[in-house]
Formats: sequence, structure tokens, C-alpha cells
Amino acid sequence: MPTLFRKIKEVKNFIRGLRASAGNSFSVGFVPTMGYLHEGHMELIKKSKLQNDLTVVSIYVNPLQFGPEEDYERYPRDLERDLAMCGEAGVDVVFAPTDEEMYPETPKVKIEVEGISNVLEGVFRPGHFSGVALVVLKLFNIIQPDRAYFGEKDFQQLKLIQRLVKDLSYPVEIVPVPTVRDKDGLALSSRNTYLKEYERESALSIYRSFLIAQKLFRAGNTSANTLKEAIKEYISKHPHVRKIDYVEIVDEDFNIKEGEVSEGDRILVAVWIGNTRLIDNWRLSYEEV
Amino acid sequence: MPTLFRKIKEVKNFIRGLRASAGNSFSVGFVPTMGYLHEGHMELIKKSKLQNDLTVVSIYVNPLQFGPEEDYERYPRDLERDLAMCGEAGVDVVFAPTDEEMYPETPKVKIEVEGISNVLEGVFRPGHFSGVALVVLKLFNIIQPDRAYFGEKDFQQLKLIQRLVKDLSYPVEIVPVPTVRDKDGLALSSRNTYLKEYERESALSIYRSFLIAQKLFRAGNTSANTLKEAIKEYISKHPHVRKIDYVEIVDEDFNIKEGEVSEGDRILVAVWIGNTRLIDNWRLSYEEV
Repeated sequence: MPTLFRKIKEVKNFIRGLRASAGNSFSVGFVPTMGYLHEGHMELIKKSKLQNDLTVVSIYVNPLQFGPEEDYERYPRDLERDLAMCGEAGVDVVFAPTDEEMYPETPKVKIEVEGISNVLEGVFRPGHFSGVALVVLKLFNIIQPDRAYFGEKDFQQLKLIQRLVKDLSYPVEIVPVPTVRDKDGLALSSRNTYLKEYERESALSIYRSFLIAQKLFRAGNTSANTLKEAIKEYISKHPHVRKIDYVEIVDEDFNIKEGEVSEGDRILVAVWIGNTRLIDNWRLSYEEV
Repeated sequence: MPTLFRKIKEVKNFIRGLRASAGNSFSVGFVPTMGYLHEGHMELIKKSKLQNDLTVVSIYVNPLQFGPEEDYERYPRDLERDLAMCGEAGVDVVFAPTDEEMYPETPKVKIEVEGISNVLEGVFRPGHFSGVALVVLKLFNIIQPDRAYFGEKDFQQLKLIQRLVKDLSYPVEIVPVPTVRDKDGLALSSRNTYLKEYERESALSIYRSFLIAQKLFRAGNTSANTLKEAIKEYISKHPHVRKIDYVEIVDEDFNIKEGEVSEGDRILVAVWIGNTRLIDNWRLSYEEV
């Protein structure tokens, strides 16, 4: 089983101690999570284990990144199960702090990244990315990893973190890991547990709409609008689709594309299936799918 | 003479190398400056040398913390002189990057601290503290010091940094160092070089107004308004005082005091003497001055 830490000071001292005794080439990989782990997280852990001497997983449902109307209270939690999964995966250290430990006072720091914090997810979840930025930088400062692993599933979050690390010269390498999907194509997410059995088929429309867009793109349709409309039309004809928050296409620098799209651009989608808000994204390419 | 570095990678690798070979108890002290060093900086350096094995001074006039109408262009610079002073003081490493090295692209990150970034200096210098926060965190990430030294002269900046370090769990100890004053009481500042000979007497009114406030306080006058008015009245009757931006009193948590003040509260002042904007501050105490 991994060593479990609840206190900032203890996990910090433990990792520092290992570093000091292990010498210069010792490397620490870090996987920040909100727990309720699934195969997507396991991919991050696998990659960290391949690349580092020590793998640290944090499990913390960060209240700062939830809006007042959001699912903070009902977000699924199961530390026992998470620890068992971490043990199975060979994780060395789990850091699972309490709120009191992370935020003895309400933080006063707000961190924004222009062109990322305030678009798409940032519009529908005001304050979300400031909460994400704060907790991730704080965890970086506690764990002081050499590499940190983020899923492409939360693509805008990945871009946010990459930009923070670049602008602030954080001494950590950000390693993106491709989205893991169920056999039917649904992107893995802890929030999938909210879905009712009969809603799943509708949730699958997101993935399937990406395949449609990709086919259109391969057939020469490079208008952003054509692709976005095809996606919206396909998704919205499914039952239980309560609302499409957005369908957008961004380039590698996270600029929203208006005219022609090209290979490497990414479709980003947020859809409400019943009471469950799902996000997903897809990299446009000429490959057959 | 100190070892001079111009490149982020080189200074980082140099310090890391020293750490790795020196072992666990090796400590690094860091003094961030905008150069044009004076005795105030020397106090920071002295303290760092007392407390650490290695002392690093950065010299960088950070464009991000200057407003478009401010004195970025005319801010005094003299690297040769600074290096000589650092050599004299026994500084081990000087890091003096170019703008191109620090900001190969314009940073997109904005960092605010509620209740600090947006009051007093923050009102008169919009964006200033976001620029300060960004450059200081970036320098922390490059140097990775155990301790960093900040003058109380820039009191609001000190409070900003302390709060950033607390909220983000930065692994660095912030060491405040009392303001150094000339024999006549003028707080040392690189910007004092802007003062014309005949303006100095008026600039001294700031320090002298603090002594008046302190005397009033010791005599039992604890009304914030009484003290602030006495300061404003005294300063404004001097020639060359073009404008008083603010006179305020804050408590240790940087809350602005409206009613009664108490020992430990701090008077903060910003005054234009001719074309020179000076800031200074004073801790209220029962001590005789």
C-alpha cells in the first residue's frame, strides 16, 4: 500500500528526505486528482511510474474550483477504494489533505490566465480556473515534483497549467496524457457516476459527434461553422440532452477558430445530459477513425 | 566578485549543482532587487549572508510592474556599480537577466491578492502588484531559495509576497528587513536620485510627519483621522509637494483603519515631490523617537 499523508509538512519532509538521501538523479512524478479514481487516472499513474523513481498521487476535492451552484457536495468520494487502486498501481505516496489543512484561512490569491481563464469553461464556471490554478500551484509547492501528469480530457485545464508553468518558470515538466474512453467511446470521468442508465446512450452522442466531425474534416469540410453545426445538430437530437453549453474549436494556442480549421485544432464540447454536465474534446486529424 | 548569470537555465543549474554537492543543510538566501543598489539593499544582503550558505542577488528592472505613464525608462541602472557593491558585500551570485530572457512572450498570467493588490499603491498603480507577484514568483522558481529578503520600505509589496507564499505554500521563508534611512531620516530608495537638491527638504517632511504622528499617538491621540490629518497638514505645507496620493493607516493584516489605531498599526504614505513619487511607512509604537 502507498504511504498516506494528511499533513502538508509531513509529505513535504518525507519527499525531501528521500531526495536528500537518494541523490541528484532521483525524480518525483506527481498526479493531482480529486479522487474516485478510474482508468484515466491509472494511465497518468502508469506514465509517472515509467518516468520517475517516486510517484505521488494527491486526492483532494478542491472546494475553490466549484461554483456555489455546482456539485461540490455530491462529488463522489471513496478514499478506501482509491487507496486500494493506488496500491495496485504501485503508487508510492498518497497525499490526501483535509480542507482545514489546505486552507486554514480562505485564500486571497486569484490567478487568471488571459485568453484561457475567461473563455469556454471559464464563462460557464466563473472562478473555476482561479481555484484550479491555486490548488495546482500549491500542490506543486508542497510536492515539488520533477514531472506532473494531466489528462487531455480536461483540455482547457491542461492549457492553463502549461501556461502558468511557462510564465512563472515553474521547475516542473507538464506531461499531457491522452483521454481514456470506455469501449463505447464515453470519455472516462468521475462524474460519469451521475449518469442514469438510460442517459448513457445520449451521453455517447458527444463521442459520436466527434467521429462525424472528423469524417467531415477528412472529406474536405474545413469550415469551423460547418463542423460545429454538425456536432450541435447530432448531439441535440438525442433525448436527455438538456443543454449544450458550447461547441467550439481552438488552435494549439487556445485561440478560438472562426474560419477555416486545420489538423491539430481541437473541438471542445460541454453538454448537460439530464443533471450531469459532461465535457469532452477531440483533436482534428486526417487519420481514419 | 560574484558570479554573474544572464540566463535562467544557467543560474538554476549552478545553484542546483551546488545544492546537490553540498548536501542537505545547505541554504540559499535570495535578495530580489531592481538594481541601483543602496544601503537598504546592503542590509538585505547582510542579513542573507548571516543566515545562509549562499547569497543570490537578482538585478532586474521588471517592465511588468510599471504603468505606461511611469518611470520605467528613466529608472536608474548601473550594473557595473551594482556588481562592485555586491562584490564588496560578499554576494556569491548575481542574476541579471534581459527582458528577452525573462519574458520571451508577454506573460498571460495575472495574480491578484484581494485586499492588497487593489488598495493604496494598487489604486494609484493599476497592474503594479500583478507584475510584482509574477516576477517574484518567477524568480523564486528560478532561484529556489530557502529564504528571501524584502525591505519594509515597500510595505504593501512585503504583505503581498507574504500572502502569496502563505496561500500557495511556497517553500520559502520571507524575511522582512527594517527600512534604512539617511541620517536626516529620508528612507533610502533608488528613486531618491530623481530628487533635486532643493526638493530634499520637502521630501524630509514625510519622515518628520511620522515623528509628529508618533508623538501624538504617545500622547493619547488614537483616532486614525487625527493622525492622518496631522500628517497631511504637515507635509502639504512644504514647497514642491505636488500631490499627496494617500495617507492611510493599516493593521497587521493590512485592513485599513477607520476608527481607533493601536500599537503595531502602520502609517502608509505616497507623496509627489516635484516629479518624484515617494512612498514611506511607519510602525506606530509607544516608544520614544
